[in-house]
Amino acid sequence: MPTSKRFPTAHLLNVNERFFLIDCGEGTQIQLRRFKFGFAKINRIFISHIHGDHLFGLFGLLSSFQLLGRKNELHIHGPGEIREMVLFYERYFGTEQSYRIKVHPLGYTREMLIFEDERMEVFSFPLKHRVPTCGFLFKEKTAELNLKKEAIDRFKPGIENIHKIKKGDDLVQSDGTIIANEQLTLPPWKPRSYAYCSDTAFDPGLSEFLQEVDLLYHESTFSKDDEDLAAKTGHSSSVQAAEIARICNARKLLLGHFSSRYKSTDGLLLEAQSIFSNSVAVNDGDVFEVERTRTENIPEE
Amino acid sequence: MPTSKRFPTAHLLNVNERFFLIDCGEGTQIQLRRFKFGFAKINRIFISHIHGDHLFGLFGLLSSFQLLGRKNELHIHGPGEIREMVLFYERYFGTEQSYRIKVHPLGYTREMLIFEDERMEVFSFPLKHRVPTCGFLFKEKTAELNLKKEAIDRFKPGIENIHKIKKGDDLVQSDGTIIANEQLTLPPWKPRSYAYCSDTAFDPGLSEFLQEVDLLYHESTFSKDDEDLAAKTGHSSSVQAAEIARICNARKLLLGHFSSRYKSTDGLLLEAQSIFSNSVAVNDGDVFEVERTRTENIPEE
Repeated sequence: MPTSKRFPTAHLLNVNERFFLIDCGEGTQIQLRRFKFGFAKINRIFISHIHGDHLFGLFGLLSSFQLLGRKNELHIHGPGEIREMVLFYERYFGTEQSYRIKVHPLGYTREMLIFEDERMEVFSFPLKHRVPTCGFLFKEKTAELNLKKEAIDRFKPGIENIHKIKKGDDLVQSDGTIIANEQLTLPPWKPRSYAYCSDTAFDPGLSEFLQEVDLLYHESTFSKDDEDLAAKTGHSSSVQAAEIARICNARKLLLGHFSSRYKSTDGLLLEAQSIFSNSVAVNDGDVFEVERTRTENIPEE
Repeated sequence: MPTSKRFPTAHLLNVNERFFLIDCGEGTQIQLRRFKFGFAKINRIFISHIHGDHLFGLFGLLSSFQLLGRKNELHIHGPGEIREMVLFYERYFGTEQSYRIKVHPLGYTREMLIFEDERMEVFSFPLKHRVPTCGFLFKEKTAELNLKKEAIDRFKPGIENIHKIKKGDDLVQSDGTIIANEQLTLPPWKPRSYAYCSDTAFDPGLSEFLQEVDLLYHESTFSKDDEDLAAKTGHSSSVQAAEIARICNARKLLLGHFSSRYKSTDGLLLEAQSIFSNSVAVNDGDVFEVERTRTENIPEE
């Protein structure tokens, strides 16, 4: 349940200025406005499962898109029931609909690639909850080599050569001299990844698919003392979330989806940090950046 | 549309500790929590029309009632489509529903008594909007005479006599002496009334039914300068709202439902006050009390 300080679940993911909304609890559009995000930029929404605290904000968002005169097609990846919800919405509230909504039903048997473009991939993977539920893994693709600006300014290769250089070729100049690729490029950025796991019971089986994830969000509904409740309701404790982060070799763990029974999340965070030190208990509006690193160290000049 | 400071529409009305929710825009349950209202006390909800900004909070509220283990039947008065919404809700989100929801469809041809108990009445009345829309008038019934505590303490009439005294009878004591009713009672409280008009185009025809209303809420979506937009969209300007208050002889006017196009509501309020001075532009969380007055002045001793 929401509290006076916490709205239900929604994450906004920015992958190189491409924006993805993950779950859409009641009030998501209100929070997006409060945190000054022009949400017309969202073209793709991922809904993990058909529980109200993860999707009751959908109708309001669809409606505001319409009031803003949205034209771009909107894609929603979610449980099959989302199609029924969208039909219901369109029937009663979308009669003047200015844009198309396309629903992509999720599968629950295994990890599946559900979206890709030239720079990234999105996978769904099954979680263990009371109803069919998916997590989502967002992964950048391996990038091309980065050009060294000063070298490009100096040797001025044409567009065609630049494409070749980015793929690793040396530059053959018009006088026949060869400039080695290493003089022209930096190693590519390491592809970054973000995994979203909500809601789920403790499931160490996730660790294989999420191995080495940079940023892991894992629900943390209960305290260690309430793990019986967690098991009964298909949720996890903060300690279990931390254990998943540990066995995944994640770089950082975000904890959320706290039960309203806890006045403070300090206790849950401490429990998690005892297992996985780089854990954070998130608050509404928090922003986390996954820093870019090179695939290899650049030797100093 | 909601803004970072204003949630969509919802009013909570307290009539002698009986609580009524009027419209239920997205985030209503969140605001009720923020303003510290234990919303399990709500047993009756009134929905004016089937536009999202007046009811997208319904699913979240129904869901939280369930999580709180609600047992009491919930009554919803609203457009017939609300029945479809409730069925949809129950099908996908209410499988473990702990309480019954009873929907009472509204009529749109004339004023109708839609609820009453021993102390109050609720009427619906048609408004002029793009879709069938009702306003609601809440009226206390004429109260009985109030007992003068000191006189009751002195003459000690039995329970049976007290009922008669409240209806105006004198008290005949066991020794045959008669105590005049005026010595035992104060004039009753004047029945108070609250009218809710949202959303509607300017409709002076409302004034007859709402004559002498104590507190009038009237939507005020636009400024006087945008009255063409108001007419086109089935809304009112603040000046038109004030004109309704004036011809109703309302005691006080509340303005709301402001278009997000206005950075401040000061201009709209000033326009309204030039027509009806006791106008207020409401903010989320504002509380207004309709003060009780006696039906007649009490002569000083």
